[in-house]
Amino acid sequence: MIRIGLLGCGRIGQVHARSISQIEGARVTAVADAFAEPAQALAARTGAEVLDPLALIDSPNVDAVVIGTPTDTHYDLIHAATRAGKAIFCEKPVDLSSNRIRDCKTVVEQAGVPFLTAFNRRFDPNFADLQNRLRHGQIGDVEIVTIQSRDPSPPPVSYIQSSGGLFRDMMIHDLDMARFLVGEEFVRIYAVGASLVDPEIGKAGDVDTAAVTLTTASGKICQITNSRRASYGYDQRIEVHGSGGMLRAENVHETTVEIATASGFTKAPAQHFFLERYEAAYQAEMTHFVDAVASGSSPTPNLNDGLQAQLLADAAAGSLVQGTPVDLI
Amino acid sequence: MIRIGLLGCGRIGQVHARSISQIEGARVTAVADAFAEPAQALAARTGAEVLDPLALIDSPNVDAVVIGTPTDTHYDLIHAATRAGKAIFCEKPVDLSSNRIRDCKTVVEQAGVPFLTAFNRRFDPNFADLQNRLRHGQIGDVEIVTIQSRDPSPPPVSYIQSSGGLFRDMMIHDLDMARFLVGEEFVRIYAVGASLVDPEIGKAGDVDTAAVTLTTASGKICQITNSRRASYGYDQRIEVHGSGGMLRAENVHETTVEIATASGFTKAPAQHFFLERYEAAYQAEMTHFVDAVASGSSPTPNLNDGLQAQLLADAAAGSLVQGTPVDLI
Amino acid sequence: MIRIGLLGCGRIGQVHARSISQIEGARVTAVADAFAEPAQALAARTGAEVLDPLALIDSPNVDAVVIGTPTDTHYDLIHAATRAGKAIFCEKPVDLSSNRIRDCKTVVEQAGVPFLTAFNRRFDPNFADLQNRLRHGQIGDVEIVTIQSRDPSPPPVSYIQSSGGLFRDMMIHDLDMARFLVGEEFVRIYAVGASLVDPEIGKAGDVDTAAVTLTTASGKICQITNSRRASYGYDQRIEVHGSGGMLRAENVHETTVEIATASGFTKAPAQHFFLERYEAAYQAEMTHFVDAVASGSSPTPNLNDGLQAQLLADAAAGSLVQGTPVDLI
Amino acid sequence: MIRIGLLGCGRIGQVHARSISQIEGARVTAVADAFAEPAQALAARTGAEVLDPLALIDSPNVDAVVIGTPTDTHYDLIHAATRAGKAIFCEKPVDLSSNRIRDCKTVVEQAGVPFLTAFNRRFDPNFADLQNRLRHGQIGDVEIVTIQSRDPSPPPVSYIQSSGGLFRDMMIHDLDMARFLVGEEFVRIYAVGASLVDPEIGKAGDVDTAAVTLTTASGKICQITNSRRASYGYDQRIEVHGSGGMLRAENVHETTVEIATASGFTKAPAQHFFLERYEAAYQAEMTHFVDAVASGSSPTPNLNDGLQAQLLADAAAGSLVQGTPVDLI
Repeated sequence: MIRIGLLGCGRIGQVHARSISQIEGARVTAVADAFAEPAQALAARTGAEVLDPLALIDSPNVDAVVIGTPTDTHYDLIHAATRAGKAIFCEKPVDLSSNRIRDCKTVVEQAGVPFLTAFNRRFDPNFADLQNRLRHGQIGDVEIVTIQSRDPSPPPVSYIQSSGGLFRDMMIHDLDMARFLVGEEFVRIYAVGASLVDPEIGKAGDVDTAAVTLTTASGKICQITNSRRASYGYDQRIEVHGSGGMLRAENVHETTVEIATASGFTKAPAQHFFLERYEAAYQAEMTHFVDAVASGSSPTPNLNDGLQAQLLADAAAGSLVQGTPVDLI
Repeated sequence: MIRIGLLGCGRIGQVHARSISQIEGARVTAVADAFAEPAQALAARTGAEVLDPLALIDSPNVDAVVIGTPTDTHYDLIHAATRAGKAIFCEKPVDLSSNRIRDCKTVVEQAGVPFLTAFNRRFDPNFADLQNRLRHGQIGDVEIVTIQSRDPSPPPVSYIQSSGGLFRDMMIHDLDMARFLVGEEFVRIYAVGASLVDPEIGKAGDVDTAAVTLTTASGKICQITNSRRASYGYDQRIEVHGSGGMLRAENVHETTVEIATASGFTKAPAQHFFLERYEAAYQAEMTHFVDAVASGSSPTPNLNDGLQAQLLADAAAGSLVQGTPVDLI
Repeated sequence: MIRIGLLGCGRIGQVHARSISQIEGARVTAVADAFAEPAQALAARTGAEVLDPLALIDSPNVDAVVIGTPTDTHYDLIHAATRAGKAIFCEKPVDLSSNRIRDCKTVVEQAGVPFLTAFNRRFDPNFADLQNRLRHGQIGDVEIVTIQSRDPSPPPVSYIQSSGGLFRDMMIHDLDMARFLVGEEFVRIYAVGASLVDPEIGKAGDVDTAAVTLTTASGKICQITNSRRASYGYDQRIEVHGSGGMLRAENVHETTVEIATASGFTKAPAQHFFLERYEAAYQAEMTHFVDAVASGSSPTPNLNDGLQAQLLADAAAGSLVQGTPVDLI
Repeated sequence: MIRIGLLGCGRIGQVHARSISQIEGARVTAVADAFAEPAQALAARTGAEVLDPLALIDSPNVDAVVIGTPTDTHYDLIHAATRAGKAIFCEKPVDLSSNRIRDCKTVVEQAGVPFLTAFNRRFDPNFADLQNRLRHGQIGDVEIVTIQSRDPSPPPVSYIQSSGGLFRDMMIHDLDMARFLVGEEFVRIYAVGASLVDPEIGKAGDVDTAAVTLTTASGKICQITNSRRASYGYDQRIEVHGSGGMLRAENVHETTVEIATASGFTKAPAQHFFLERYEAAYQAEMTHFVDAVASGSSPTPNLNDGLQAQLLADAAAGSLVQGTPVDLI
C-alpha cells in the first residue's frame, strides 16, 4: 500500500485524490493546503489527516507526495520531499525558471527519489495508443508531426499575468508531446504569435494565438498551433506522418450522436472541459506513478522531461521576441 | 463501333446520351421520341438522325437500342427490337406486370439478343465495390443485409398514381440490390407500410413509408426501409453483416467540408439529386452494356433479374394488403 | 443518505457497488449472496455487513435493495422487498414468465414501492441524448426506427439453455429501446431468425441471428437486427428517421486513433466488453434510482416497462415459431 | 462560342480538351505540339486543326489559348498571345523566374487581355466551398490556416532537377491556396525541409519533406507541410481556425465503403491520382475561364496571383538556405 500525502487541495488536488481512490494499492493518508476549508473537506472525504506541508512531507505515514500547489511553491516542496526521501509527483510546470528546474533535477537525481512530471496528456488513452503504435513502427520512421491544440476560451488576464505566458503555460504540453512522439531532441525552434483573441492579453504582454516549427538534427519536422479560443470545444489533435503512413488522434466528442437535417450532418462538439477530456489520463497517470513507486522503477515523464519542455518553451518565447529561430544547444 | 438508337429523349434519355458520348467505342446514331422538340435537340447535340421508333429499331445504322420511354411502351418496343435482333438496354421497370415481363423474357431468350435491365445502382462505384468485396469473401458468409433508402422528397401524386406504387417504383431498386448482395433467392417477404409523409399519397392508395423483411432458404435475412422524404438528402445506405465482419457504404455528401462551431461539427448534406448521386453509375452501366455488346457477352442485370425484382415487389405489395408474409414459390 | 442492500455479489452486483460508491447520497450497508466468498469480498470493499437475503431485506439499515441474483429468484425477492416496503432496483429480465412479472407488478403497484427495471441502455449518455432530442422534436415525428445490436461473440450453449432464448435474453434490450424511442405501444410484431453463428445454438432450440419488424397503430415502423457474433466489437447502433430529419448514435470505439496506410484509413474496433461499453450507463442508472428514492419520485423504466418488453419478446418468439406476425392485444 | 487553341497536347492538354468538350459555349479549334503524334490524336478527337504554335496564336479561328507546354516555353507564348490579343489560360508555374513573370504581367496588363493562372485547386468544389464559407463569415475572422499536402509518391529525380525545387513545383499550390484563404498578403515566411523520402532528391539539391510558417501584418498565421510520399493516397487537407469556429476539408476517398473486422473499421485510401482527385476542379477552372472570356470579365487567379505565389516560393527557398525567416517586401 502506497501512502500518499497531497500537497494542495484545490481543483487538481481533488482530481488526484479521486484517482487515488480508484487504485487498490494506494491511499491518501495526509493532506495540506494554505487554506483550512479545502484541506478539511478533502480529509473528510478520504479519511486522511490534515497536516502542515512540511509535517506532511516528513510524516512516517507518507511514502509519496503529490504536489498540486501554486507553481512558485514547487521548488521548496521538491527540495524538502527529496531530503525526506519521498517519491514525488509534481504538477507542471515544475517551475517557471529553467535554472530552478535544473537545481531540482540535480538534487532529485542525487537523492534518487522517484519523480514524475505531470504531463498528463502522455497518459491519454488515445495519445498513448498513438505513441505506442509509433514505437512499434506501424508507420515506419516519423517525418512530420502536427499538433493542433486549442482551449475552449481564454483564462482571465489575471491568470495570464502569472502564467509565464502561452508558451510556458499552454504550449508546454504540446512541446512535451512533440518530444514524446518524435523520440529525438529538437535542435531548433521558430515561433510566431499574436494577440487575436483578446486585446487585454496583448496588453499584458502575452499572445493568445501562436505557432512553432521544430526540427531535429535528422530533419524531422514538428509544427504546433495554439489558440486560447475554440468555440467547438477543447480541440486536441495530433497527427504523425511517417515513411509508411499516417497516425492521427481525433477529438473526443461529447456523444456519438449525429443529427441530419437540411443543414447537414451534425455531430456533438468536442468535450469542453479539460478535467472531463483528460479524466482517463489523470487516472492512468496516477496509476503509473503508484505502480512505479511500488515496483521501484522510475516513472516517466521524469524531471529531465520537465526541464527539456521548459527549455523549449523558453526558446519559443525567445524566438517570438527576436523574430528568428533559436538553436537549442 | 456500337451504333446506338435512343428510344425516348427525356431526362433519362439525355443522361444515357451523355454517357455514350464518353465511350470511345459507341455513338448515338438515331433518336426517337413522341415529341419532336426533344428528339431534334438531342439529334443536334449528338449528330444522330431523328426517326420513328420502329424505323429506328429496324435501321441498319443501329446495333443496339436504349429504351427510355414511358413504362407502358416497353413491352412492344422490346418485342420489336428482339425481332430486329438488336441488343436492348431497357429502363426499369421493364413492365408493371410480371406476366408481361415473363413474355418479354421468353422472346428475348429465344432470340438470344443481349438485354440489360437498367438497375443503375448495381453500377454505383461504392455499391459495386461493396458487392465485389463480398464476392471475394472479405467478411465471410453474408448473414444480415440492411438497406436504408430514402428519397429527398415525394413525387407529385399524379406520378404516384401511374407508378405501380412504392414497392414497384421505388423499393424495386433495393429489392434488386438485396438479390445482388445476398447471392441467393429469397423465399419469403413481409411488408409493412403507411402514409406518413403526405396524406394524399395514402388517398391515392399508396404508402410513402415502408419496410420489408426478406429471408432465404439458408436463413439469411434482409431488412429494407423506404421513405419518400429525407430532409438531409438522397439517403442511400447499405450494410452487410457477415460471419467475418461488416461492410457498409455510407452516403455521398455534397462536399468534404466540415464546419465546427458551438453547435457541433457539421458536414454537408447528402447529395440530393439522383442524377448527380448516380452520375458515375449511369456511366458505368452504359459502359458495361457497350462492352458486353461489343464482346458478345451477356450483360447483367438481365431480364431474369428484372423479373425477379418485380416478383419481389409484387409480393411485398401483396404482403402489405394481407398483413402476412408471402412465400415466393 | 440512501442505504442500499445488495442482493447478489457477482459481476453485476460488483458493478452496482462501484456505481454506488461514486454517489454522495448513497452507501451499500448490507450484502447477500448464495456464496460466502463474493459476499465477504464485497463487504470488505464497501464496509457493508453480510446478511441472509431475507434478513437483508428486512434490515432497518436498508432503504432500498438492488436485485442482481439469478433470474429465477427475482420473483420471491421482489415480493419480500415489497412486503418490507423497500425501494427496488431489479436486474432484467424481471422474470422469464410474463405472468409472473404481472404478479409482481400488481403487488408492487399496490404497495407503492419505487421500482426500477434495470434496462441500462436507456441511461447510456449517447442513447439518452438521442431520445432527449427526439422528445424535444429535433427531427419532428418519429417514422422509422432501426436498431443494429450485435454481441462480440456468442455465450456458451449452457447459458443459452437457461436464458429464455435470444428474444428474451438479448433482443429484450432493443425492444425496450424501441418503446423508449417511439413513445407509442407497438401493435404487431413479425420475427425471423436462424442459427447461422453456432449450430449448437440451433440444436439447443434457439436462434443466434434474428430480426423483427414492429408497427404502431399510427403506422410508425421499427426494425431490429440481432447477431450473437460481431468480429468488430460490441455493435450497438440506433437510428431514427423522422419527419424533419434523422438522428443516429454510432458505436463507441476503443480510441480515437486512426492509421492510414496503403490499405486505407483504419479506426479502432468498437469497444468489446459490455461492462466497459455501458460503464457510464450503469453509473447514470444507479444515480437515477438513488435520486428517485431520495426525492420520492418514481424511477423509470418501471415494472410496466419490464412487462411490456417481455410481452414483446414473447410475441417475437411466438412469431418466429408460427411464421406469421403476432398482434399485441 | 469561344474558340480555343490548345498549346501542348500532353497529359494536361488532353485534360483541358476534355473539359472544353463539356462546355456548351466553347470548342477546341486548333492544337499545337512539338510532336506530331499527340497533336494529330487530339485533333482527331476534337475536330480541331493542327497548327504551328505561332500560327495557332495568330489564327482568326482562335479566341483564346490554353498554354500547357513545358514551363520554359510559357514566356514567349504569353508574349505572342498577348500581341495577338488573345485570352490566355496558362498552366502553373507561369515561369521559374519571378522577374520573367513580372515581365509577362506588365505586357498582359498593358494589353488588357484576360489571363488565368491555372491554380486548379482553387476550383476544387470542396476547397471552393470552404473559401466561400470563409468569405461569408461563417467562422468569423481567419486566425490560423493549416494545410497538409502530400503526394502519393515522389517524381523521378530527372523531373526534380528541372522542376525548380519543391517550393516552386509543389508547395506553390499551397502557397496560392494560403493567399486565397487568408485574403491578406503575407509579410514573412520561414521554411524548413529535409530529404527524408529519397536520398537522390537530396543529392539533386532539393528537399522532399518541408514545412513553412507564414504570417500577415495583422498576425494571421499559416502553416503548411509537404511530403513527396504518402502511402495512403494523395493527401490534400485544409483547415482554417477562425474567431467563430473552424472549417476543414477532408480528403476525398476512393469509395464510401467501410469494412469492419477485428482489426478495426477501415475506409478506402484517399484518391491517388491528381487527375482523378482534381477532375471536377479542372472542369470548373475551364468553365470559369470560358465564362470570363465570354462575358468580358477578368478571370481569377490572375497573373498577379501567379507572381505572388512564385515570390512566396522563392522566399521559402531562400529561407531554407539561410535558416532564417525572410521578409516579403
